[in-house]
Amino acid sequence: MALISIIEDFHPLANEKLLSRAEQLTPPLRHSILEPIGGFQLKERYSPEKQEIVLRQLPHLSMGKGENLCLDFGEHLVGYLTLELSYTGSHPDAPAFLKLKFAETFQELSENSQDYDGWLSRSWIQEEYIHVDLLPSTLVLPRRYAFRYLKITMMDTSPKYKLIVRHAECRTESSADWTGLRPLQSGDEQLDRIHAVSLKTLANCMQEEFEDGPKRDRRLWVGDLRLMALTNAISFRNFDLVKRCLYLFGGSRFPDGRVSANVFTKPTVEGDDTFLFDYALLYTVTLEEYLQDTGEPEALDDLYDIAMQQVEYALRQLDSTGVVGAEAVKDAFIDWCDELDKSACASAVLLYALRYARRLARRRNDWSQANYLLQQHDALRKAAMERFWSEEQGCFVSNGQISAASQVWMVLADVCSPEQALRAMAKTLSLAEGPRMSTPYMHHYYVMALLRVGLRKEAEEHLRYYWGSMLDAGADTFWECWDPEHPERSPYGGSVVNSYCHAWSCTPAYIIEKYLLK
Amino acid sequence: MALISIIEDFHPLANEKLLSRAEQLTPPLRHSILEPIGGFQLKERYSPEKQEIVLRQLPHLSMGKGENLCLDFGEHLVGYLTLELSYTGSHPDAPAFLKLKFAETFQELSENSQDYDGWLSRSWIQEEYIHVDLLPSTLVLPRRYAFRYLKITMMDTSPKYKLIVRHAECRTESSADWTGLRPLQSGDEQLDRIHAVSLKTLANCMQEEFEDGPKRDRRLWVGDLRLMALTNAISFRNFDLVKRCLYLFGGSRFPDGRVSANVFTKPTVEGDDTFLFDYALLYTVTLEEYLQDTGEPEALDDLYDIAMQQVEYALRQLDSTGVVGAEAVKDAFIDWCDELDKSACASAVLLYALRYARRLARRRNDWSQANYLLQQHDALRKAAMERFWSEEQGCFVSNGQISAASQVWMVLADVCSPEQALRAMAKTLSLAEGPRMSTPYMHHYYVMALLRVGLRKEAEEHLRYYWGSMLDAGADTFWECWDPEHPERSPYGGSVVNSYCHAWSCTPAYIIEKYLLK
Repeated sequence: MALISIIEDFHPLANEKLLSRAEQLTPPLRHSILEPIGGFQLKERYSPEKQEIVLRQLPHLSMGKGENLCLDFGEHLVGYLTLELSYTGSHPDAPAFLKLKFAETFQELSENSQDYDGWLSRSWIQEEYIHVDLLPSTLVLPRRYAFRYLKITMMDTSPKYKLIVRHAECRTESSADWTGLRPLQSGDEQLDRIHAVSLKTLANCMQEEFEDGPKRDRRLWVGDLRLMALTNAISFRNFDLVKRCLYLFGGSRFPDGRVSANVFTKPTVEGDDTFLFDYALLYTVTLEEYLQDTGEPEALDDLYDIAMQQVEYALRQLDSTGVVGAEAVKDAFIDWCDELDKSACASAVLLYALRYARRLARRRNDWSQANYLLQQHDALRKAAMERFWSEEQGCFVSNGQISAASQVWMVLADVCSPEQALRAMAKTLSLAEGPRMSTPYMHHYYVMALLRVGLRKEAEEHLRYYWGSMLDAGADTFWECWDPEHPERSPYGGSVVNSYCHAWSCTPAYIIEKYLLK
Repeated sequence: MALISIIEDFHPLANEKLLSRAEQLTPPLRHSILEPIGGFQLKERYSPEKQEIVLRQLPHLSMGKGENLCLDFGEHLVGYLTLELSYTGSHPDAPAFLKLKFAETFQELSENSQDYDGWLSRSWIQEEYIHVDLLPSTLVLPRRYAFRYLKITMMDTSPKYKLIVRHAECRTESSADWTGLRPLQSGDEQLDRIHAVSLKTLANCMQEEFEDGPKRDRRLWVGDLRLMALTNAISFRNFDLVKRCLYLFGGSRFPDGRVSANVFTKPTVEGDDTFLFDYALLYTVTLEEYLQDTGEPEALDDLYDIAMQQVEYALRQLDSTGVVGAEAVKDAFIDWCDELDKSACASAVLLYALRYARRLARRRNDWSQANYLLQQHDALRKAAMERFWSEEQGCFVSNGQISAASQVWMVLADVCSPEQALRAMAKTLSLAEGPRMSTPYMHHYYVMALLRVGLRKEAEEHLRYYWGSMLDAGADTFWECWDPEHPERSPYGGSVVNSYCHAWSCTPAYIIEKYLLK
């Protein structure tokens, strides 16, 4: 996730008690050392044509000015690179000047970052220019990278020597504990592979927080957290990490109590000055699901009021017709899709969250709040049906627009009758026009809505179509953005800043285990 | 100095005793902390037009994408940079991506290194691309730079924040000890300034060895050592450093005993596979001068044989006419000048070195060697006069070419009578054609030759003209290359790799103190 919101003189509200608890819950990071399993040279610097090399030959392979060497670590890694460098020829009489490019996917290797002109900072591009003054030497890079491929380009040596990369290794880093986890063996190769890549995606985003992506933005967003928590519950079961993340969001909020869409943890914990209407509501959802999974009382005591603040804020945004007002709708994320009318979605997400909020209130024995929330829910549901349901179309219409997103969130929010919900989702299946879903985040909720109305076969087909096609396109971990019909699409104006291991695309393992295998 | 010689499978001869003694003589490095004294922004990235800024305002000056900030440290520094970085705006949501360019001269700031296409490695260009993941933070650069100006270009931030450079400082490094040295106060402003800049040049090249230039090549070359040792003797008087350098050259030589033109000291001491005919002979000269200065016996005992090997090797290169043969002439450096015919120079440098070698032999009471060298000297002198002296032209002619270099070295070698020498130098003064002298190294010997024939006034005028014009062109330290008539000239195909603090240009202080003030 990445959106731009800038608030002048933003000073988030710090809750030291919550921050201190979050700090205590920081997970240990686990490490392993991995070496490349293959290598090649790109025939031209920015062309995908390649010439394989035998890794055993690495210590004999010298690189002169302009030459490149690509190492393939065989899987997506998050960690720190070490290179053992040496030379051939005369004693080096000038520094070695290297460019290192870390790529999550093969196609990134032949992209020229100079061509990138998108709106997201080019500082996310994982490239370094490095001068090595002494050879032989061991180069230990201080920054963490997310990559499968490493491209080393020799910017310059001197006519007197050539560089040799004797050895490369990556010290991986993750807080995911694979102990006791076994690969799914369902007898269905595609499902097994989708399951495995989902867990790998989640694991590589599990660091000291649930990061949205280890390449970018490397931080905790509510919408990603909710989906990671679901998948974590059926896999790594690191519930303390979920709890830590809930405390981080609680510990640094907007001055009026709203939860930031994302939170920075370094150098100190600080909620971002970005607010997303739906993400804040998913905070409430995530807390309730965490309590379902763990039943532990501390988080309920500490975070209950904050969870309630989120729905109460949202309820104050209703307009005169009783649905979420246009100003608040602007703050809803829902999907990377400029054409999407988000009015129906915003009200639906609020309804969805109200269900979880009521559960929290009951869990807390806060009966008056539970009753209040029920009344609000029923009123909003009625208003939403009046405003958005079209009996004629047999689906939800948001300011004249029929979109998958509107159907999905209305169905998940249990707004209508089961028959209406089925009609709406059936309509969605046959939609030829309208805004296209663009992110795995949206596709997750789409599959969930299909399951909700009993379209299990269609749900499985869509999961196989969407995440399966990512595998066919070479994914080692699931991606931030993917449209099988438009593989090159990036919401950022250039795919070189796309994240190819992105938390919000990790849910197929959850869906498979929870719904498809049963 | 930088020349290209590549010898396959070169394994220099190590003398552990000499290397261990050299190691013991490693001088302590002295440090001081210096801050910028001024700052400005270049109006365009590659244009010299600038807008001054008030340094006090630095902590309030924010840099967005594409903006630059230049800091002027007021003098040429060699050392390590520390930047204290902060930000303004929202919490940084992407790394800061900076380009740092360290420039010895103002004009370097507006040069685009992308345009460089010379034969010397672009890895010498003092530029770094750096990603800063956390802000605020203190950035300590691990490499040493030679610079007066620092240009910081903001390659990218994000739309959410801008960078602030709160503070910058350089921790300088040099083994020169200024204690007790006072600025020259001759009453002549230009001479005083030339003297001061000479010493500054020498000091900034005095590190653990006498480096040829702290920007490039950062190592010990014989030709530079000889001139630095002369100037060191009238200033910092760090004779142990001269001794260390003599031992380093002695400690790692060509397998046949020849002294390499330069020696690497890191990661271990290793003589380069470059041999320069004249430089090897200057090793013998430098040892004798060191002993004149110190009178100490150890170096004579340890290095005498090596010094003799250099002249003996050269004597074996005489051709059938008794002068240095064409193959050996190819190995002579003399000056950066492709058009220069170096035959006369090569024989003259050998004659010059034979005088010093004889002194060494006498110092050692090695009378048979002294006699042998005298015979060789006289024979070579006779052959050289026959081959190169033209009574008709009144000067030395090298294969049909009349050059300053030929006259200079023949005069310094005492080949001819004082009258002939005076005629030759007078002729040189009026030379309108022929190869131009290009380096301060050559200009030093030119001034010395003028002094040798008694043209004191002309010597002083030339010193003022040559080094004075460097000052007028903005030198804070004296440069590697300078032709007052062709200021843009670089022997490397691009001035961006030129060294603007170069050891071999430090001798004016020596000349002024030794000859001009008397």
